[in-house]
Amino acid sequence: MTRHDERVATQLRKITITENYLMHPEGSVLIQVGHTKVICTASIEERVPGFLRGQGKGWITAEYAMLPRATAQRTVRDAAKGKINGRTMEIQRLIGRALRAVVDLEALGERTIWIDCDVIQADGGTRTASITGAFVAMVQAVAKLHADKPFNHFPITDFLAATSVGIVNQEAVLDLDYVEDVDADVDMNVVMTGDGRFVEVQGTGEEATFSRAELNDLLALAEGGIQQLIEQQNIILGEQAQLIGKKEEEA
Amino acid sequence: MTRHDERVATQLRKITITENYLMHPEGSVLIQVGHTKVICTASIEERVPGFLRGQGKGWITAEYAMLPRATAQRTVRDAAKGKINGRTMEIQRLIGRALRAVVDLEALGERTIWIDCDVIQADGGTRTASITGAFVAMVQAVAKLHADKPFNHFPITDFLAATSVGIVNQEAVLDLDYVEDVDADVDMNVVMTGDGRFVEVQGTGEEATFSRAELNDLLALAEGGIQQLIEQQNIILGEQAQLIGKKEEEA
Amino acid sequence: MTRHDERVATQLRKITITENYLMHPEGSVLIQVGHTKVICTASIEERVPGFLRGQGKGWITAEYAMLPRATAQRTVRDAAKGKINGRTMEIQRLIGRALRAVVDLEALGERTIWIDCDVIQADGGTRTASITGAFVAMVQAVAKLHADKPFNHFPITDFLAATSVGIVNQEAVLDLDYVEDVDADVDMNVVMTGDGRFVEVQGTGEEATFSRAELNDLLALAEGGIQQLIEQQNIILGEQAQLIGKKEEEA
Amino acid sequence: MTRHDERVATQLRKITITENYLMHPEGSVLIQVGHTKVICTASIEERVPGFLRGQGKGWITAEYAMLPRATAQRTVRDAAKGKINGRTMEIQRLIGRALRAVVDLEALGERTIWIDCDVIQADGGTRTASITGAFVAMVQAVAKLHADKPFNHFPITDFLAATSVGIVNQEAVLDLDYVEDVDADVDMNVVMTGDGRFVEVQGTGEEATFSRAELNDLLALAEGGIQQLIEQQNIILGEQAQLIGKKEEEA
Amino acid sequence: MTRHDERVATQLRKITITENYLMHPEGSVLIQVGHTKVICTASIEERVPGFLRGQGKGWITAEYAMLPRATAQRTVRDAAKGKINGRTMEIQRLIGRALRAVVDLEALGERTIWIDCDVIQADGGTRTASITGAFVAMVQAVAKLHADKPFNHFPITDFLAATSVGIVNQEAVLDLDYVEDVDADVDMNVVMTGDGRFVEVQGTGEEATFSRAELNDLLALAEGGIQQLIEQQNIILGEQAQLIGKKEEEA
Amino acid sequence: MTRHDERVATQLRKITITENYLMHPEGSVLIQVGHTKVICTASIEERVPGFLRGQGKGWITAEYAMLPRATAQRTVRDAAKGKINGRTMEIQRLIGRALRAVVDLEALGERTIWIDCDVIQADGGTRTASITGAFVAMVQAVAKLHADKPFNHFPITDFLAATSVGIVNQEAVLDLDYVEDVDADVDMNVVMTGDGRFVEVQGTGEEATFSRAELNDLLALAEGGIQQLIEQQNIILGEQAQLIGKKEEEA
Repeated sequence: MTRHDERVATQLRKITITENYLMHPEGSVLIQVGHTKVICTASIEERVPGFLRGQGKGWITAEYAMLPRATAQRTVRDAAKGKINGRTMEIQRLIGRALRAVVDLEALGERTIWIDCDVIQADGGTRTASITGAFVAMVQAVAKLHADKPFNHFPITDFLAATSVGIVNQEAVLDLDYVEDVDADVDMNVVMTGDGRFVEVQGTGEEATFSRAELNDLLALAEGGIQQLIEQQNIILGEQAQLIGKKEEEA
Repeated sequence: MTRHDERVATQLRKITITENYLMHPEGSVLIQVGHTKVICTASIEERVPGFLRGQGKGWITAEYAMLPRATAQRTVRDAAKGKINGRTMEIQRLIGRALRAVVDLEALGERTIWIDCDVIQADGGTRTASITGAFVAMVQAVAKLHADKPFNHFPITDFLAATSVGIVNQEAVLDLDYVEDVDADVDMNVVMTGDGRFVEVQGTGEEATFSRAELNDLLALAEGGIQQLIEQQNIILGEQAQLIGKKEEEA
Repeated sequence: MTRHDERVATQLRKITITENYLMHPEGSVLIQVGHTKVICTASIEERVPGFLRGQGKGWITAEYAMLPRATAQRTVRDAAKGKINGRTMEIQRLIGRALRAVVDLEALGERTIWIDCDVIQADGGTRTASITGAFVAMVQAVAKLHADKPFNHFPITDFLAATSVGIVNQEAVLDLDYVEDVDADVDMNVVMTGDGRFVEVQGTGEEATFSRAELNDLLALAEGGIQQLIEQQNIILGEQAQLIGKKEEEA
Repeated sequence: MTRHDERVATQLRKITITENYLMHPEGSVLIQVGHTKVICTASIEERVPGFLRGQGKGWITAEYAMLPRATAQRTVRDAAKGKINGRTMEIQRLIGRALRAVVDLEALGERTIWIDCDVIQADGGTRTASITGAFVAMVQAVAKLHADKPFNHFPITDFLAATSVGIVNQEAVLDLDYVEDVDADVDMNVVMTGDGRFVEVQGTGEEATFSRAELNDLLALAEGGIQQLIEQQNIILGEQAQLIGKKEEEA
Repeated sequence: MTRHDERVATQLRKITITENYLMHPEGSVLIQVGHTKVICTASIEERVPGFLRGQGKGWITAEYAMLPRATAQRTVRDAAKGKINGRTMEIQRLIGRALRAVVDLEALGERTIWIDCDVIQADGGTRTASITGAFVAMVQAVAKLHADKPFNHFPITDFLAATSVGIVNQEAVLDLDYVEDVDADVDMNVVMTGDGRFVEVQGTGEEATFSRAELNDLLALAEGGIQQLIEQQNIILGEQAQLIGKKEEEA
Repeated sequence: MTRHDERVATQLRKITITENYLMHPEGSVLIQVGHTKVICTASIEERVPGFLRGQGKGWITAEYAMLPRATAQRTVRDAAKGKINGRTMEIQRLIGRALRAVVDLEALGERTIWIDCDVIQADGGTRTASITGAFVAMVQAVAKLHADKPFNHFPITDFLAATSVGIVNQEAVLDLDYVEDVDADVDMNVVMTGDGRFVEVQGTGEEATFSRAELNDLLALAEGGIQQLIEQQNIILGEQAQLIGKKEEEA
């Protein structure tokens, strides 16, 4: 079976990651996954939230938003409504949690990395594109810090990327765009590390259910896709990629 | 290896479901899972949210909250802060989505089932206990409606229950209490139906990761636990359990 | 004239106070007054609000809420609306003020007692049941503190309980349930101490008025009811009741 | 014993009511009770809140606020904090409820009377001054309506005024100013009608209690003060006072 | 062409400034510009907002509000809506910015002057009346401070007043009232100092535009009006006016 | 005197307008003014706000926001604070008002044009860049509508662009970047139409003042700059530019 955009089931959309996309942030990229475009920035603040103060550990906080016309119908801004909607909350909690899994917070020290993912154009998979792009922005920001004042252990311990998989018309497919997402019976977001371990697996039947066999198929698809995403991150990061997981000798 | 409360890895905590716990709601239970206690109610409203009006379909909305002293430290009320926190949002979206997977919304007609899960005492697993208890309250409320004015097809299509599993001290265990939850490297919530299919699988490494093999072990544990929970729901529901999935002849 | 539930005008509904209802709080009870059920907890925090800091005095703050289905029609949660409604505000201010009348705040020291009253089921009289129950929870919490590190003067100086009275069909009656409350022309809440003094008298004609003679009748009824409530508090508290108003010798 | 401002215990402060204080509202007064100054306006809206629609009845809603520098220390505006504080809520609920006791809502028809009480300068007794002034503004607004399109029964059935009484230095005194209010052990607000019946009695021991005898003394004082206030309302209202309680012949 | 209220194009409405209008604030006036009435108060707080702390500089913050019935139709309170509307924000930012232009914030020292402008009655020009009145209240408050503990340099460096001008029926007119404001094609608010320099020029075509020549005419009109306003401020301030711009010898 | 970036006083920064920047909106551009980058979109909704319903007129509403890292220091999102800050409010009101000056709202019919300006990167002049860019997006959106169902009179009546001017180190300069803006004593935003008339003139002395002569210099500079901006809009719009101000023959 062919997909509506001619891809095969195991095929990602075209990925482009533009580095240093903005002049102000310590790290910033524009990630494009097909028509989905997200600006991801990483900012470093030299303090931690109250609950961590004095423990010698750092923190990572993520925020996510969509421009009103990132979508086909104009979406009302959260600021105009005076509160953050549930979907946004869920996504920003996911992004922060995912990135923390590959950061050694003790090595980072008492700093907060603020991740901002702003969706400029949405065509499915915005949360997984956000994770994949934010990882690159975060590495750049931490590498910049490292260049000034080297860490003994570089705080980022492994690569991290994410994709979505789902069951559309009874078939498991990789990297759903918006049209497929609307049609999907099962939708799963998977976050994995460079060494092939899971960080998050969130599978949801939307008014539907799925079997163990289907779950296995979906995980296999995701694994293949995430390996390709990490290869792209590796290329974009160039020399900075060498720092990931590196434990230097102490002075 | 024994767990801190003497359970074996595959053992649920003691479950008690008290039916008709409150006088006003159409359906209500007190579910106790070990020391965790949740009041679950189901209320039926004869209209649907704006986005569904005129489509002949029903809806299920869930709200979740904890009493301030459900927890060891007093938690500030969301109402006092003027906004619902992210964790609460995530949980109430999960409960609603899970229940919708076993309800035929067309058969329900233009009605909303409001599910309220209020945690009276928390000792881990409050979101999964909420789903398991809310399912029973929902069946009761819909059965009451059915008794007055029978549906052609009873709108609830299958049983539904949930549990948590996790990796604690390198071991996969079923139904984590609070002490285990704090220690867990991986935490997974699983929602399944009576016919053994998944509705939600949410596995999260909290500053940790997990392998495919570990994921498989966790899913197997969850499957066993949920079967036991559904047996208990079956017993509690008694005759009402017969209605689930039933398609009557049209008049 | 008989009341709709067969009580005579001077008769309270059945009162049950279940001690140590929850595992986490320092003090907790479930109070049932007829069908009205309220969980009252007392939590002790070792600091005071900003306006009292450094004055060597303590404080008591109360919060009150109802579960959405404590009522016949589902009530929208304050948290969902993002603000606390006027009735809730009024009640929680009343509970706090009433309890402070029997606490020696200097003897308490720089501590806050947080009182939480959560109505599980409402059938009239929820605010007075909250005060009566919260008093017991507060004594338990303070007695626990006293057991660890005795106060010279036990900070609770007298018993405290509350009831409602009203004029229903031209007759003054004690302890109105919901049906009577809806019908009442005059509704009065009275809070009294163990030595028979008033702490609060709040009489309201709802689209009606009342004479001095009617006011006197209502106060007499309330006095009789509150004495009975205090007897029950005394029994429940057992040995802890001996601490109330006790001034020990200084070391 | 003399009071700090030379008044005797049974003496009101000087009362001035300026009619038609503002050009826009249907009714408006500036009421001065000693140094306390409140602008009270009554606005008539030709519709009722949702819960009353279609029942042929009217409604009265009151709002109360203080200018930031009505007080000795600048008070933060509720609008700046984004929520109405508890004291404000309590007062505006009291004002609305009190006025409703002397309005025949059926006779008023499907209209809302909006009462706004804005305290320009505060020196104790702002809520009772608000009620006394708002009553006059309301009569003016309803009389203006009546002049255009006469009611069969004038909807305002009786006079209404309010004052505060309290126990200061063991003595019951009438109409407390701010200095006395701060010192008072017991503070009571009383609202009465022209025929000497109570609408509201709210007595509060602030970290203190009071006996039945003290309560009686306070009520007697309040009664005397309110009679004087109603005489003043009568004079100010002039011919409009004749309309109060009047039942005209039907056409 | 005559204006609807018989004024000529270059004529201000009648201005009255009542000093020491309220008992509590350090400075307070009631300013009346025709039917527009605004209570302006100045409060001095011995600390500065966070962003200025430790810099030895002061700050001026302004808040603006209208009573609900300052207007012909009742306006909903910002507090009731839980947020400050855009127009209010814009005006309070303007008032604060304007006043800061004639205050030497270093000479003021680490203090905040809170300006509160509350419109009691609105008939056009409320924001410019607020600035003109607030200037007087501010001088009084700072002069009171100076009387206790003299400044080396009096922190207020020049007079400041404001008026509106506009194009109504093709004619440039000074000091528009509400009727003219509604009809105006162009509306301009101008703030000037005692030495004839501009602080703010805000000209707006509301669904209309204006030429350079028209702009020049409007500025000339405003200049004339503001000179008259400053003369009135001078008279009202009496001896305090001598302090403005004064640099005393150091002790 | 040369400016820090080598421009002469009368020189704009480099302007680039990228058309059809996003796939979903009816009109969208990326406008770059030096390093300032704003995404401007125009969305057409087939209904008007409540206050205009049934009048046969359209409306234009603008919203403005900055990404958190559009700025050198991360800015907290309005959504996270739960309210829109004053500066944002002021800017979005300005954008809407400015655009309405060149739209014939009757010709537009009962439609709302939603303008969204999201600043991706800020280096001074974001509000004027927003207006200049939003005009182009709006023309595109209305032209698209016109292509489907031609208007008798094209609702956009003239070109519209904006720039800032200011006094920096005693010199009047055009199109300030962030470094100049921080240093400026006077800051003025000017909005003009294609026929050289003013729509908005907002000049502000920030803790400073300006003379009539300085004002004249600033306006002359702005006029020159805006003409250049309108030439660029003309080129970008190509054939669509012909529609502006066009009155077609009626059918």
